[in-house]
Amino acid sequence: MMETIMPNWLMRRAELTPDRTAFETDRETVSFRTLFQMVTDIARELRSIGVRENDKVALLSESSLELVGFYHAISGAGAVSVPLNNRLSPEEAAWQLRDCGARWLICDQAFLPLAQMIVDRTPCTLLTMAEVHDQPKTSCGLNSAFDLNKPCTIIYTSGTTGHPKGVVLTYGNHWWSAAGSVLNLGLREDDKWLCCVPLFHVSGLSILMKNVIYGMTVVLSGKFNPHAANRQICANGVTMMSVVANMLRRMLDDAGAEGYPGTFRCMLLGGGPAPLPLLNRCKEKRIPVFQTYGLTETASQTATLPPEYMFTKIGSAGKPLFPAEIRIVTDGKAMRPNQPGEIIVRGLNVTPGYWGRRDATERAIKGGWLYTGDIGYLDQEGFLYILDRRQDLIISGGENVYPAEVESTLLGHPAVEEAGVIGVADETWGEVPYAFVVIKKGLVFSEKELLNYCRRRLAGYKLPVRIQPLERLPRNASRKLLRRKLVDFLPKTFAPRNDF
Amino acid sequence: MMETIMPNWLMRRAELTPDRTAFETDRETVSFRTLFQMVTDIARELRSIGVRENDKVALLSESSLELVGFYHAISGAGAVSVPLNNRLSPEEAAWQLRDCGARWLICDQAFLPLAQMIVDRTPCTLLTMAEVHDQPKTSCGLNSAFDLNKPCTIIYTSGTTGHPKGVVLTYGNHWWSAAGSVLNLGLREDDKWLCCVPLFHVSGLSILMKNVIYGMTVVLSGKFNPHAANRQICANGVTMMSVVANMLRRMLDDAGAEGYPGTFRCMLLGGGPAPLPLLNRCKEKRIPVFQTYGLTETASQTATLPPEYMFTKIGSAGKPLFPAEIRIVTDGKAMRPNQPGEIIVRGLNVTPGYWGRRDATERAIKGGWLYTGDIGYLDQEGFLYILDRRQDLIISGGENVYPAEVESTLLGHPAVEEAGVIGVADETWGEVPYAFVVIKKGLVFSEKELLNYCRRRLAGYKLPVRIQPLERLPRNASRKLLRRKLVDFLPKTFAPRNDF
Repeated sequence: MMETIMPNWLMRRAELTPDRTAFETDRETVSFRTLFQMVTDIARELRSIGVRENDKVALLSESSLELVGFYHAISGAGAVSVPLNNRLSPEEAAWQLRDCGARWLICDQAFLPLAQMIVDRTPCTLLTMAEVHDQPKTSCGLNSAFDLNKPCTIIYTSGTTGHPKGVVLTYGNHWWSAAGSVLNLGLREDDKWLCCVPLFHVSGLSILMKNVIYGMTVVLSGKFNPHAANRQICANGVTMMSVVANMLRRMLDDAGAEGYPGTFRCMLLGGGPAPLPLLNRCKEKRIPVFQTYGLTETASQTATLPPEYMFTKIGSAGKPLFPAEIRIVTDGKAMRPNQPGEIIVRGLNVTPGYWGRRDATERAIKGGWLYTGDIGYLDQEGFLYILDRRQDLIISGGENVYPAEVESTLLGHPAVEEAGVIGVADETWGEVPYAFVVIKKGLVFSEKELLNYCRRRLAGYKLPVRIQPLERLPRNASRKLLRRKLVDFLPKTFAPRNDF
Repeated sequence: MMETIMPNWLMRRAELTPDRTAFETDRETVSFRTLFQMVTDIARELRSIGVRENDKVALLSESSLELVGFYHAISGAGAVSVPLNNRLSPEEAAWQLRDCGARWLICDQAFLPLAQMIVDRTPCTLLTMAEVHDQPKTSCGLNSAFDLNKPCTIIYTSGTTGHPKGVVLTYGNHWWSAAGSVLNLGLREDDKWLCCVPLFHVSGLSILMKNVIYGMTVVLSGKFNPHAANRQICANGVTMMSVVANMLRRMLDDAGAEGYPGTFRCMLLGGGPAPLPLLNRCKEKRIPVFQTYGLTETASQTATLPPEYMFTKIGSAGKPLFPAEIRIVTDGKAMRPNQPGEIIVRGLNVTPGYWGRRDATERAIKGGWLYTGDIGYLDQEGFLYILDRRQDLIISGGENVYPAEVESTLLGHPAVEEAGVIGVADETWGEVPYAFVVIKKGLVFSEKELLNYCRRRLAGYKLPVRIQPLERLPRNASRKLLRRKLVDFLPKTFAPRNDF
């Protein structure tokens, strides 16, 4: 059997390049040596609290160096991080904690009120980061090794059923993702990656992995600000950055006519297909855009289009990363080039499965292939095109919103008989959810009341922009909701999303 | 268990970047698409000959694109390559083939006479590369996947006993070596690696792995020529090169005063510690030298010194590559910084063991750690210094010569009672073997006859530069030969090697 033990990545990195800059934030610059020391201290504190091997430790925080420290410390103590999307409602977050059996919830000061509401609904112990630091430190610091087969993180992702599922990513998954990316994007001594995407998403988390594995400086920005991001690129030597289309558009609006310096070499664009006008503006400014396709289940990007194909292969998400494979299938049969079907992915970066969901795992992963539910095709040269996202997925400002989840919330209201949710185009967020409901006989429709009802139960980005009553919802013969037909009922002031 | 299957590297590479240049030779430039086609053809021919999964296929050839093709084709047919050092005597090579149970020996035209002498001593089938190409092609081409746990190559390395051992390197070993190297040296789109080291050594073989894994152009040079190598760097955009000290010295002798262009970014210097004057000359010419330490057992480099430490850490082989660990032990106890002891190495790049030698494997690899036999220390900052090479190893022009092997050959001569071999300094090769013998009572010493005797049995680079008779050899109380004391018997015209 293959040996699967390797040195603790941060420990290794601190041994190899202790003086190299690990992070730059608005307030400080820390070396890998300092990061290692900080993380060792946190691990000692966590052990002192009673965090044990394989414990699930949930994190609720703004993006911060401290959050980075907790991620590594939880790994170093042999436990598993469960990052919480900090825009979730208390009920949503509590559901995730109960689902994975988290023993601890650690939050920063800003999220203490939300965290309190969350733990009230779970058997978890709540600690602020400050409270953790008040603990005595045990003598035992970081584990010196990682087992590539062991879970490193559990990240929740919603699905068709409306119930989110915990995607288990092992150390090996994160390693192979980072290795695949470096073989595609290369690595230079002066590389500096600007991270403005959330650290609770796999997109941000994968940057933390690259940070220690590559020994690459990361500029960590708490909140995305297009002007600040442009300044990082133009005046602070940032060479690479992860964005979604909305962020990129706002950066272009802010950027000067001169564009970016030649040192900037990669704008990694994820979170759904890029609109053509946006790509054209990037071309004018000679911005090297790498369009990418990835899922939480693939530990971030699994296909990427290099900028030399930005226009000849417009709309393509490129080719799979070196260790990953992509096929298109329909009814178990591989499709020929240019024939659409379901996108399936195989590779050492692919999750072993969903936490505690053997059935869902067996439905999603068959014979080593992950069935993404996304529809697409490969052209003659093997470039991937995404035609349709899984299960009518709405992507709002880079966040996934599953219509089924919003519908299921609406259906919880006593007045709602049926509910249907679609995405509509939005200038700021790309798309936002729009809801239709059928009200129960004899009851009264109030949009305001339904929105309030949702607001208490759903993260803000999942809230419908409007809730509109209908006599009945369009359904097929077997009563399946035909979401696409809902488009016909939209008022003229709303446009369906681009690919409808 | 961790999934250990990944796509066939060459096939993957040809899918991802078909038009990128894979190889440049004196005569041609081939893309990855062309290389893939060429390799597929060879695999079809090999299958047609009857090469089956797990067969050992020995290769005896000059460095050539064709040899590269056979390496990949053997992998693609599921078989295992056994590269033969083309300077071995027929007896030495035949021993290796018999030891690993090779079914096939494939040679190029130039080595046909030697290959014939080799197979006469084995049950192998001999085919020239041309004869392979004459075969009909089966429809079945390359296997589409590699199992990281499976042997990819078996490379013979000599040891103390005088009997070489077959180092098994898996696909995983080669992968982790390439991954460790890229995290240390980085990777740029314009990288071009000049390969003048033998492809039958792990140093050359590892460049072939990097070629397909990184998608990096390799300039393949049949024979090393300092002037041609300099021209590659100065006029053909070569950015990286693997050398041993002797090659580097000859390149410096040839190079113009202006040194190398800024595009050249890595002179990877292996094969033993570098002499200080050589490093000083490199400094004057601003040549970025990366000193490195590696063994066949570690799939090439396992520690490397970046050029920024070239003078502050002079003589150091640097720090271990990211996935590898190095410790210093004596009697099973870890040594403190600056305390010398045996160098032991652990990591996913380390061989699972020696072919068919369970005992030797268990002696060499304990608890996952490879005991190298080399003596060294780690300084306070974790930089590795090699003090003494294993078992009085002589490194002659980058080739390992084990005194025990030469001694054992000498002892086979009817007139030789005892033999002792040491390395002496040599302007051209760095070191060469020098032999002392005790002649049996009543028999006559003839240096010429003994040299002829050796010439028929040993590779040229293992031949002693002189054979000198002594009354007795210096031995300790338990009759162990004290090779270092032999230095006192050297005539004045010979200097012991540097570290004696």
